Amino acid sequence: MTNTATPASVRTQVRRGAGNARYDSANLHAILDDAYLCHIAFGDSHGVHCIPTACWRDGEHLYIHGSNGSRMVKTLAEHACCVTVTHLDGLVMARSAFNHAMNYRSAVIYGRFEIVDDDAAKHASLEALMDKLAVGRQAEVRPGSDKEYAATTVLRIGLSEAACKVRTGGPNDDEEDMAWPVWAGVLPFARTHLAPVPHEACSAAPPAYVQAWRSA
Amino acid sequence: MTNTATPASVRTQVRRGAGNARYDSANLHAILDDAYLCHIAFGDSHGVHCIPTACWRDGEHLYIHGSNGSRMVKTLAEHACCVTVTHLDGLVMARSAFNHAMNYRSAVIYGRFEIVDDDAAKHASLEALMDKLAVGRQAEVRPGSDKEYAATTVLRIGLSEAACKVRTGGPNDDEEDMAWPVWAGVLPFARTHLAPVPHEACSAAPPAYVQAWRSA
Repeated sequence: MTNTATPASVRTQVRRGAGNARYDSANLHAILDDAYLCHIAFGDSHGVHCIPTACWRDGEHLYIHGSNGSRMVKTLAEHACCVTVTHLDGLVMARSAFNHAMNYRSAVIYGRFEIVDDDAAKHASLEALMDKLAVGRQAEVRPGSDKEYAATTVLRIGLSEAACKVRTGGPNDDEEDMAWPVWAGVLPFARTHLAPVPHEACSAAPPAYVQAWRSA
Repeated sequence: MTNTATPASVRTQVRRGAGNARYDSANLHAILDDAYLCHIAFGDSHGVHCIPTACWRDGEHLYIHGSNGSRMVKTLAEHACCVTVTHLDGLVMARSAFNHAMNYRSAVIYGRFEIVDDDAAKHASLEALMDKLAVGRQAEVRPGSDKEYAATTVLRIGLSEAACKVRTGGPNDDEEDMAWPVWAGVLPFARTHLAPVPHEACSAAPPAYVQAWRSA
């Protein structure tokens, strides 16, 4: 994987906390690949909307899918939007109230979605989504029918106008606050896996990726 | 706490997966209170943006804060926006590819932010943020100075035009797929706490909320 730096645009140039900005593809890909959903901002005649939806990356595109009839699918195929992924990693406890912060990784993408209308590409992209959820599962489930594929729209947006912000590490206190007698540090979060919950009507043995879920 | 139902507006009426829609304040408050950050969609002369920021609820308002000079703060005080909070709770493994889903809780709020410019209300709201991060910490840290308060803008948005979507439970497979020989169920996520990381220069003993963090 190459790790190219994308020049910042007027929209992706980070102004607040510019020291936390990242414009390289390694950070961008890692933040997107760690996400199962994104938030998409788009406008229509009712105003601006911020809608969460499942997403997955393949190469230099981020993919989403939806029912053909959905308002969001129809609007996104015709208008520019902004797609954001954010991971919260911790609460940063500083010695002064106003220096408290959060550790996070976020990616913001500007552009316009395009519909993936080539049948082979559409099938491949939905298989990539399944691979993201559980590697190997695609071969086990009842495959999609022509009717199901036809009722679903897959869209993708290029990653050429994107920027990340990443904050890690402890508090940045002012020098004159360093002796303040209070605990300072980070209270970290993690996204973890709980025990798989088999469907009540399921008699099939758990495959390897289900057995490994809890310990992953 | 009263649990009132808000009538759906043109914008909050859920059309896709309408059975997952929730319009009551108990669901709305719980989803917001479980979040440390939201995504805000707003437009300006460069297009539409989707920006993550820290948030906290007090009564029937959601609060955010930022530097006086930030583009987002200035824009939000003057334009309508959409604020969304989403929690991902699990991957839903169905017997057919197209019935796969995710379990989640999301809240979408439409409206316009107003600046909290009364000094007492502004102080109280920032103390509520600290209480959300760590109850009791407000009394331990170096308090904000007049200059720090003056450089920070607090904004709040009412919860009157809001809707939630909540999906829980196992897969909804088609009757004719129920005998397909594949494991079906839910692979659940949880947001958990990792061990606190004291700042290297910190000699203060960990308070109760830090000691309790790992086991919470």
